[in-house]
Amino acid sequence: MKKKKSKAQEKSAAGKKTRPASKVALRDTVAKGKPRPAQLRHVAWKSIDVEPLNPLLGLHFVVGQNIMLARVLLKKGCIVPEHSHPNEQVTFIAEGALKFWIDGKEIVVNSGEVLTIPPNMPHKAEALEDTVDFDVFNPPRADWMNKTNSYLR
Amino acid sequence: MKKKKSKAQEKSAAGKKTRPASKVALRDTVAKGKPRPAQLRHVAWKSIDVEPLNPLLGLHFVVGQNIMLARVLLKKGCIVPEHSHPNEQVTFIAEGALKFWIDGKEIVVNSGEVLTIPPNMPHKAEALEDTVDFDVFNPPRADWMNKTNSYLR
Repeated sequence: MKKKKSKAQEKSAAGKKTRPASKVALRDTVAKGKPRPAQLRHVAWKSIDVEPLNPLLGLHFVVGQNIMLARVLLKKGCIVPEHSHPNEQVTFIAEGALKFWIDGKEIVVNSGEVLTIPPNMPHKAEALEDTVDFDVFNPPRADWMNKTNSYLR
Repeated sequence: MKKKKSKAQEKSAAGKKTRPASKVALRDTVAKGKPRPAQLRHVAWKSIDVEPLNPLLGLHFVVGQNIMLARVLLKKGCIVPEHSHPNEQVTFIAEGALKFWIDGKEIVVNSGEVLTIPPNMPHKAEALEDTVDFDVFNPPRADWMNKTNSYLR
């Protein structure tokens, strides 16, 4: 089954930045839509480096075969600019609150609440407080794995 | 794309219990592998009834298109008997600890830790403490939606 390249992937391919071999291999595997092997893995969030995308935003994630579970740390005032992706998203706020602009509405998702975001639905968000957010994606976000998520950087 | 029926679905079909019309419709939709519509939904966990499967185990869940996010509440000593399912699973422990017997190993997953479980890998679990567990499934668990998860009851 062929996957359509995301804009992020196309941009990455055009950018031709030099990357470590391991990153290239990962990018190529993801870009070609090869299935990732399903693996039993036991990991602690504290063992996975938090990637600081900007001074107010950090993230780390665990990737399975078709599921990505990301832990996103947003400081109060952090803005995630409007973007969309072909990946289905389910967001669960564990601490804090995120205000979303989505589908013509403003929705505040507080701690203990969930937002299901269909594929390709543009959304923007702002952290109203320091926030710990878990985002589930299907399929995994290739642009996050490939570090081509320039809208966040 | 045809989906293979899970054992739970086959058992459900053979059981022929009388169900409310709404449940039959849901079961039929899931069993036939029809895609669920992708919807923007904002829900609080506290607004979704916790289904008490047994005195030590309760669960509730949010279902998207291809993602199920379940919040599973286990009292200390709760045993989840060995079972397997074709759905990929990613488990995140928010509070407490679960001991898994899986792939010939014993793995204790503590608060702040994640376990990725490949499709069709048998596993058993025991709550070592009162535990709040988030389970992500792809695709959503038809047996949970259809309430045919008899191994938990």
